[in-house]
Amino acid sequence: MFNIFPIKGGLANVEGFYCDGVNVGMKTNPANSGTSDIDGDVAFIRSDTLCDISATFTTNRFQAAPIKHFLAYPKGFQTNFILMNAKNANAMTGKRGIEDINTIFSKLQEVYPCTNPVMSSTGVIGYPLPIDTITSAFDKFDFDAKNSHKTARAIMTTDSFEKELAFKVELDDGDTFHIAGICKGAGMINPAMATMLCFIVTDADIPKEEMDDVLKQSVEKSFNTISVDGDTSTNDTVLLLSNHTSKTYHKEAFAQALDMLTHQLSMMILKDGEGSNKVVAFTVKGAKSKEDAQKASKALSNSLLVKTALFGEDPNWGRIASTIGASGIDCDEESLVIKYADLIIYAKEFPILDKEREHKAFEIMKKESFTISCDLGIANHSFTSYGCDLSYDYVKINADYRT
Amino acid sequence: MFNIFPIKGGLANVEGFYCDGVNVGMKTNPANSGTSDIDGDVAFIRSDTLCDISATFTTNRFQAAPIKHFLAYPKGFQTNFILMNAKNANAMTGKRGIEDINTIFSKLQEVYPCTNPVMSSTGVIGYPLPIDTITSAFDKFDFDAKNSHKTARAIMTTDSFEKELAFKVELDDGDTFHIAGICKGAGMINPAMATMLCFIVTDADIPKEEMDDVLKQSVEKSFNTISVDGDTSTNDTVLLLSNHTSKTYHKEAFAQALDMLTHQLSMMILKDGEGSNKVVAFTVKGAKSKEDAQKASKALSNSLLVKTALFGEDPNWGRIASTIGASGIDCDEESLVIKYADLIIYAKEFPILDKEREHKAFEIMKKESFTISCDLGIANHSFTSYGCDLSYDYVKINADYRT
Repeated sequence: MFNIFPIKGGLANVEGFYCDGVNVGMKTNPANSGTSDIDGDVAFIRSDTLCDISATFTTNRFQAAPIKHFLAYPKGFQTNFILMNAKNANAMTGKRGIEDINTIFSKLQEVYPCTNPVMSSTGVIGYPLPIDTITSAFDKFDFDAKNSHKTARAIMTTDSFEKELAFKVELDDGDTFHIAGICKGAGMINPAMATMLCFIVTDADIPKEEMDDVLKQSVEKSFNTISVDGDTSTNDTVLLLSNHTSKTYHKEAFAQALDMLTHQLSMMILKDGEGSNKVVAFTVKGAKSKEDAQKASKALSNSLLVKTALFGEDPNWGRIASTIGASGIDCDEESLVIKYADLIIYAKEFPILDKEREHKAFEIMKKESFTISCDLGIANHSFTSYGCDLSYDYVKINADYRT
Repeated sequence: MFNIFPIKGGLANVEGFYCDGVNVGMKTNPANSGTSDIDGDVAFIRSDTLCDISATFTTNRFQAAPIKHFLAYPKGFQTNFILMNAKNANAMTGKRGIEDINTIFSKLQEVYPCTNPVMSSTGVIGYPLPIDTITSAFDKFDFDAKNSHKTARAIMTTDSFEKELAFKVELDDGDTFHIAGICKGAGMINPAMATMLCFIVTDADIPKEEMDDVLKQSVEKSFNTISVDGDTSTNDTVLLLSNHTSKTYHKEAFAQALDMLTHQLSMMILKDGEGSNKVVAFTVKGAKSKEDAQKASKALSNSLLVKTALFGEDPNWGRIASTIGASGIDCDEESLVIKYADLIIYAKEFPILDKEREHKAFEIMKKESFTISCDLGIANHSFTSYGCDLSYDYVKINADYRT
């Protein structure tokens, strides 16, 4: 057996990893965080020793230059340096985008020699990276810092808060290992990965051959079940770095800690969904197949009419039913049951929403988070997607984003 | 050869058809039309003689009761009466929903005997029809009226203007026939039909066996290419009624007039898209297959990030590229060319949007309607979908719709 404890301090908890975030002038305004601080815009995570690395990337066909640059390394390569920047996605920049990364890394080698460095970018699409601006960060970095907080804030774009998390895993024999992660993302979030970057480091002695699978499965259950707006970005990246320094590993414990980490980080992204006030779990069960359940629950988390009804706190379950009916799956209004939390809001035998049940529905919808479950009553497959409401602020943020 | 002339007066132009719309108290506020008139909420279209009828309905699996009621008639049935109501969709109302329609039609037969009457409803899902309220319209109807305008206004929900159109088709030998239509729809509009109702009447002597095909093809090119919000309703209906009274028919002329009618009516729906200010044609060409072109152009017309960028008049073509890349089709950033009207805004050889071209893009985006075209440069298949911007008002309208 084992225990998993949440611990403060983010990435700083994992021995052998260092990180920092600095401002080189690409972010010029204080974040919407109640302070007057201007966050960093360039950051790094590095390791004392070479790390195994696993990655999952966006399904967008126009993968950004940093992803192409990563994929050009030989399979199974090791690294000890990740460089990140905000404000510029280095996407749709063609061959120049990759050349620019190589130029930046040539300059990095002069200041801080490292092996197989990896880059990760987020921001506007279609502009070349400002090379001199980004490389000016190298003089400002404290390469021996463990500034997890500053690193997490440096990768923020429209995020309103930094997202960092760490766990200590204690095995029965007293051995421990750690896993920690930071991520960013608040919009362009869709079940097939989104404008989100996530960097996870661990000192667990996980065999390299297990890393890819455990990361893929964990991302499938977390980042790939959330949606802010149904758009999928060119830059989505989740990286897992392992430096093995703890000499300790337990397969089940590691998978569970990683799942907790990715689930909680993905919930932070949803909570920070651009202009959103609520996080809702859309559970579709009783489906003919897992694919059907997934299709319907993702349709719910992406429907504009569902999202605006959530914002208006309007228990208009007709939009839930209509969205399920439109999702192209097997369903039948005779066997469908829709619940908001524990309240049956639609079933064949309760077709009319009376005042008492409507009042209860209003109370549920006022909450910051709740579950909408739809039992199709056909077979026994289920899937849960997570979504948020759509407010005026989403429109405001996205009408103004670039300018 | 033939000529097609637009004519005023909507449905009233077609001999043998009568229509009226009256208020029975379900709509209680003046529409957002600058007048203090309260529109009708129940309406009819009837014919002196039995008509052939063709229909296309929503792809939503939870078809509303009026659609089920229609489909219960034997194939090839004829009718002379369509009853319409707004404010209540009679959807997700189970068997009761169909029984209620039969009750309403029993009462109609007492007042106005008719054959195989058809009903069509739009409004909120999940509430039983107010039978007595709806049947109270029968005393108010003028069954000999040709009040096309009132009929078109009675089926409006969140629409801000009525949508009616008519054409006279003149053949070379001087023979003429007419085609006229009304429709409603402003939200829940998606390429697979949407909360839209459309009623088309003609005196063309079209053979019954040609009606279904010509209607299906015309809907495919018009209503099925538009999107306001990507949601597909339970009630979508397009009906085509032909009373053959002109004794005149010309296959090509009829198809062309019908296409003009459905295209222009669908553009009116988009122009009236909830809270929208712009209509944009998204043309994807150079695709490997028509399916690819359609998938990418529909993805563009449904993308929240594209729609908010249109609202912000922000020439952020990165969102166009990203949406195409995420749509799951074959594409390549090396061969992609994106144009706003005639302006190349992205191509491999112009990767950076300079100030002059950005200024031109701003000018184009200020327009009420324009084309965004994406040439994938792979093969020669193309498809155009039509969409609109997403404004604060969309959120307001849909957060408040039911309450």
